[in-house]
Amino acid sequence: MEDITVTSLEQVLPMDIEKRSFEIITEELGNREFPNEQESIIKRVIHTSADFDYADNLCFSENVVALAKEAIQAGACIVTDTQMARAGINKKSLAKFGGEVFCFIADEDVALAAKERGITRSAVSMEKALGLDKNLIFAIGNAPTALVKLYEEIKNGAPKPKLIIGVPVGFVNVVQSKELIMKLDVPYIVARGRKGGSNVAAAICNALLYQMDKNR
Amino acid sequence: MEDITVTSLEQVLPMDIEKRSFEIITEELGNREFPNEQESIIKRVIHTSADFDYADNLCFSENVVALAKEAIQAGACIVTDTQMARAGINKKSLAKFGGEVFCFIADEDVALAAKERGITRSAVSMEKALGLDKNLIFAIGNAPTALVKLYEEIKNGAPKPKLIIGVPVGFVNVVQSKELIMKLDVPYIVARGRKGGSNVAAAICNALLYQMDKNR
Repeated sequence: MEDITVTSLEQVLPMDIEKRSFEIITEELGNREFPNEQESIIKRVIHTSADFDYADNLCFSENVVALAKEAIQAGACIVTDTQMARAGINKKSLAKFGGEVFCFIADEDVALAAKERGITRSAVSMEKALGLDKNLIFAIGNAPTALVKLYEEIKNGAPKPKLIIGVPVGFVNVVQSKELIMKLDVPYIVARGRKGGSNVAAAICNALLYQMDKNR
Repeated sequence: MEDITVTSLEQVLPMDIEKRSFEIITEELGNREFPNEQESIIKRVIHTSADFDYADNLCFSENVVALAKEAIQAGACIVTDTQMARAGINKKSLAKFGGEVFCFIADEDVALAAKERGITRSAVSMEKALGLDKNLIFAIGNAPTALVKLYEEIKNGAPKPKLIIGVPVGFVNVVQSKELIMKLDVPYIVARGRKGGSNVAAAICNALLYQMDKNR
């Protein structure tokens, strides 16, 4: 690697970079097979992280991909726990089906309530989202407290979301919060273990959208 | 993990979650020691990714942390290659020193020029950024073509940035683009290899900011 120069770069046209990346991912996964509708999701997460652990740790509830696409087709909105995840989702593709992306983490009322109640802004932002009169997909890439709050509210009778993407990252209650979500009777895509992130949450949303929106 | 319930969660106050996370990271790194000024950067990247590979693959040019903080103190601005990285950087902390964050990837003139010239929008957005009459820090978490463009422009006499954070992720020219950046005579923080991401780029910026802004 010592004598690398610009001329030693692989020559790939801008429009072909993503395709070439997915070819490399497919090669490196060897002959491994995934359920057809899950494959592009798993590979897009590996594409966004360069981390092949996701080939093993992504968990899908029964028929979740078909259910998720049905919800998007019908205009479901996506709620994220971070501005980063919101920024990463292809909002133009989602808008083609009538959906939009919400993130309440930076709202003043959320910050105030969190402080008063001694809980995280992420948790409060979930309550606010559950109050929306819309079909919702939650894409949680950062805060396990958001997942725990969703679990509690749904257990207590809140309207069930169409899908929970549970991929927070980290060390405090992250593993546990994901296991909780998989116990709910709600469609889920979860990255079991500590790994995940706002980028992973956005990648899963985009993989679903790109299965539906071939002309992006 | 089968019988997990809400009551089995670790009880941590919102304000203590980050502190507890860093304690766990420190424990799991064992007795491993890092240069003092690099430690909080390495740990924050692990915090944002739950990936201990970063303890090995982050590369720092000589004295880079001191130089980076000097630049921020003097009001340097940060340029990112994605809206996600822009969203993840603590812009309030940066503003305390007079800096702001720029990302030109979604600009119409950038899209148009990229199409006309057959190069990536990321590459064009770097040229646009180098035209700013400001001291700049580049935080590149996605596009190797952005790093290659920076390399070429600087080799051709463009004003040197104060710092290049080179942490794109992926499979096509990612490894090579990072090696190129480390050959320039410009301060760098690079995640060697395929791994990185917009989240990692933002985490490195924030770790620098939080070394300076203790009251965030």
